Amino acid sequence: MPTNLEISRSAERRPLADVAADMGIGAHLVEPYGSTVAKLSLDAVGELADRPPARYVVVTSITPTPLGEGKTTTTVGLGQGFSQLGKRAVVALRQPSMGPTFGIKGGAAGGGYSQVVPMEAMNLHLTGDLHAVTSAHNLLAALLDNHLHKGNALGIDPFSITWRRVLDVNDRELRRIVTGLGGRQDGVPRETGFDITAASEVMAVLALATSLRDLRRRLGRIVVAYDRAGDPVTAEQLGAAGALCVQLREALKPNLLQSVEQTPVLVHCGPFGNIAHGNSSVLADLIGIRCGDYLVTEAGFGADMGAERFFNIKCRASGLVPDAAVVVVTVRALKTHSGRYRVVAGKPLPEAMLRESPEDVYAGAANLRRQLANVRAHGVTPVVAVNAFPGDFDSEHRAILDIAAEEGVRAAVSTHVAHGGKGAAELADVVATACEEPGEFAFLYPEDLPLADKIDLVARRLYGADGIELSPLARRQLDAYTRCGFGDLPVCIAKTHLSLSDDPMRKGAPTGWRLPVREVRASVGAGFVYPVCGEMRTMPGLSSHPAAEQIDIDEAGEVVGLA
Amino acid sequence: MPTNLEISRSAERRPLADVAADMGIGAHLVEPYGSTVAKLSLDAVGELADRPPARYVVVTSITPTPLGEGKTTTTVGLGQGFSQLGKRAVVALRQPSMGPTFGIKGGAAGGGYSQVVPMEAMNLHLTGDLHAVTSAHNLLAALLDNHLHKGNALGIDPFSITWRRVLDVNDRELRRIVTGLGGRQDGVPRETGFDITAASEVMAVLALATSLRDLRRRLGRIVVAYDRAGDPVTAEQLGAAGALCVQLREALKPNLLQSVEQTPVLVHCGPFGNIAHGNSSVLADLIGIRCGDYLVTEAGFGADMGAERFFNIKCRASGLVPDAAVVVVTVRALKTHSGRYRVVAGKPLPEAMLRESPEDVYAGAANLRRQLANVRAHGVTPVVAVNAFPGDFDSEHRAILDIAAEEGVRAAVSTHVAHGGKGAAELADVVATACEEPGEFAFLYPEDLPLADKIDLVARRLYGADGIELSPLARRQLDAYTRCGFGDLPVCIAKTHLSLSDDPMRKGAPTGWRLPVREVRASVGAGFVYPVCGEMRTMPGLSSHPAAEQIDIDEAGEVVGLA
Repeated sequence: MPTNLEISRSAERRPLADVAADMGIGAHLVEPYGSTVAKLSLDAVGELADRPPARYVVVTSITPTPLGEGKTTTTVGLGQGFSQLGKRAVVALRQPSMGPTFGIKGGAAGGGYSQVVPMEAMNLHLTGDLHAVTSAHNLLAALLDNHLHKGNALGIDPFSITWRRVLDVNDRELRRIVTGLGGRQDGVPRETGFDITAASEVMAVLALATSLRDLRRRLGRIVVAYDRAGDPVTAEQLGAAGALCVQLREALKPNLLQSVEQTPVLVHCGPFGNIAHGNSSVLADLIGIRCGDYLVTEAGFGADMGAERFFNIKCRASGLVPDAAVVVVTVRALKTHSGRYRVVAGKPLPEAMLRESPEDVYAGAANLRRQLANVRAHGVTPVVAVNAFPGDFDSEHRAILDIAAEEGVRAAVSTHVAHGGKGAAELADVVATACEEPGEFAFLYPEDLPLADKIDLVARRLYGADGIELSPLARRQLDAYTRCGFGDLPVCIAKTHLSLSDDPMRKGAPTGWRLPVREVRASVGAGFVYPVCGEMRTMPGLSSHPAAEQIDIDEAGEVVGLA
Repeated sequence: MPTNLEISRSAERRPLADVAADMGIGAHLVEPYGSTVAKLSLDAVGELADRPPARYVVVTSITPTPLGEGKTTTTVGLGQGFSQLGKRAVVALRQPSMGPTFGIKGGAAGGGYSQVVPMEAMNLHLTGDLHAVTSAHNLLAALLDNHLHKGNALGIDPFSITWRRVLDVNDRELRRIVTGLGGRQDGVPRETGFDITAASEVMAVLALATSLRDLRRRLGRIVVAYDRAGDPVTAEQLGAAGALCVQLREALKPNLLQSVEQTPVLVHCGPFGNIAHGNSSVLADLIGIRCGDYLVTEAGFGADMGAERFFNIKCRASGLVPDAAVVVVTVRALKTHSGRYRVVAGKPLPEAMLRESPEDVYAGAANLRRQLANVRAHGVTPVVAVNAFPGDFDSEHRAILDIAAEEGVRAAVSTHVAHGGKGAAELADVVATACEEPGEFAFLYPEDLPLADKIDLVARRLYGADGIELSPLARRQLDAYTRCGFGDLPVCIAKTHLSLSDDPMRKGAPTGWRLPVREVRASVGAGFVYPVCGEMRTMPGLSSHPAAEQIDIDEAGEVVGLA
């Protein structure tokens, strides 16, 4: 099979104005950025509001291996699959971080014959939205430190500052730093650090905003520190929110690209999947939902993580109601959940995992069963998508279909990476049927449930824990947040995505454990409180031989070495 | 008079495809970025190569006050003025930094009826070129620190590292920092800091590159540190140059905008004017020179700084030959050069300076005479442009015209800020005449003159110094650079722009002084060595009430508060 870059380059693209026209979006709403990407005017939200809504499908997965199980390819493939049925679909994806593209993992535009083109545009700067987030975030940091430097009129407690800085680069050197050295003219010395841009609260704010006014409001609510009385200090109080909003005005517009099969793809925002909600933007969905028969979007990590936030955070913000949730399953992931194998990123799979073994697949079923239940816990109809890999055996695929049947869940094998939309046609057909089931979508918890109870509920109902263990610090923080008026926010539990539990080594569906909450932080502008369970890396590093070493231009000026 | 933002918003813009068509640039070379900005394909350089070249005019100034004397407005105004004569002109400008837009100074798109529109686009992200520079610069920093972290195979001396990090924000807190704290997994502790993006060598490289291949080559040559033997360590050796080039591929394309009077304006690159050469890009000029009767570009700071680098660095890289240099003069600047007044940024002018006083103007003549001589030292014909301010008196303008006449230099009063192209028509006419003088353009020095002699020559011939004083450190560095093979590079002397001397308080044309060179640095990728004379701030700070506090969106979602 050709490389992703080769497939991307040989793909025939339609003019984006035509792609938009097929979505029912007039040329006056399309702002070209070069010939391969466009932004959509936010006027589209109002202009299209009377159209009938598309069916709304979220793509999630079982608990993945460190390699990922192909949610993005399945999302793109499913969108293309609907075309095979004569239906019009729109795909909505997160924008990949650029940092990791030059680090270990290569791009994130899908793959094979289910990818977004041109992949260079998607994986590199795109239209600069991530850079706008970087700029806005760091302007707020500069204004905050300037406030301290100029006398600290707001009485900020310097040790309470939660606002760090961000860059879209893998740079471990910046994780922990001391700034403000050099003397009186060079700021106030203090400990801080940089996160990768995707981890910025500004990114989460951008992804959840429903309009420019709502963006402005959320930016103003961002809490950067606390004063000496323990009251929150906001971006509004620092006089920063308007300037941040101006910097983000263009970034708030969703980007339109297309797949290798010319399916419209909205690419917009990429918040982290652990400390943030890990979903693409509300505004892309508010537009996409009016532009076809199906809107297919992806939620980060497994159904316990991305899909839970999709339901309880993103849908709460957007008001949209999902019709079905596709749970992506692979043979390799279920074999891993048997507990018999260990998959390590950057190393080949263990030999024994490559042998035909439906028993191993079946032995991992508990994880799939739990993730299907996690979807149903929100009143949404799940569908199992078996993402077929070249080395899989039919007996192994049948084992997965058997598990789905036992759970009473529709399922299909999809070969979208190798065969594009044709390979996903059966999946699309099954999803279409599932969407017609009468839905009874419901949030997992009401807003006014106390924060600790929200965490406890998610841990028990979705993770299978016996409850939670709050550290004394976490308990104090929950009390303080409640006192500050943040008690009605939903929770976004930052734990590993590699296990239903807080321990990445525990596979399957662990029981007999309690979720330890080390500390709790608040993204008040975005609108959630995030309990932290375990070490969360918010700034990746580079390997001994980063991908950057292979990336270059060739004699013709074309990009080479992008994975 | 309406504000710049009001004038910008009410300006009637032509479709950029039409603007390009008038330049003789076909639609296939125009890549729209939204409706108000486009990028030009670099294929334009080859496709237009057979066209007759335009007259090439650089706009410089006398030694400015801290307020600036209106070079950008004069450059735009002069371009518009040529239209009044029935000539086709193209304007080429630097892209402003975004950091200062939110700091003290507001935008840098010109002003009044001689500005680039839309000014929000020009002053904010534009097409993301500065962000691409930030990303590329910081990727190189991450790769360098990762090299140290992974065992330092190249034997880099950590104390020799010259490569810092950059952000396009005014943030004094980042000037001096310690990175790599936190333990074994979090990098190698060392002292470093951030500069503003415009100060990045990557920016200077981008501005001087003549093609994508040349960009790739220059990036590879960037020296980031020295090994334990004292030999330079380059971006090429770190395996970084290809990845940087890929990140900069789009940023290398010049941006096309227009003025309020629909004159084509190329906006591209914005390197610092003291530690770098302070000129817009070579590629914009290589395209613009084929697109009309006149190409008008601006060089940073006074003729001793920006114009000197324009002649000896930029023209050396581009191979283009200037036909005339406009020296912008204001009444307020000449009065300051009398030594009788002091102008402070952010404060009103002294009362006494506002009174009619051609004597004060005449008393500052020495600076103008010297800057005219500086232009002539390169065999280029100077023209004096009096940038008229509302409070000026005719007698004061006449004093400036008298000084010009005494020097045998053509001159005109220009009211382009208040009256647009009409106000600059006389200036355009005078410049057109000057361009027809037979030129004998020459670099000030040959490449093979020893570095110290180059510095000495510029200091004596252009600054009026009696020579230079090299510190022991500077002398060692010059020897080391010569040994490393950098001896044939031109010099870019980093000194204050507020005086011909190294002391910003000395006005007029100081004599009886020697230029002290504290240290010398090398931008080997960009292709110059820069002696540092005095404190050079490469990261601005914010004031007690930064401009950001006034910037916001209004009810209609439009930007307000941008100066």
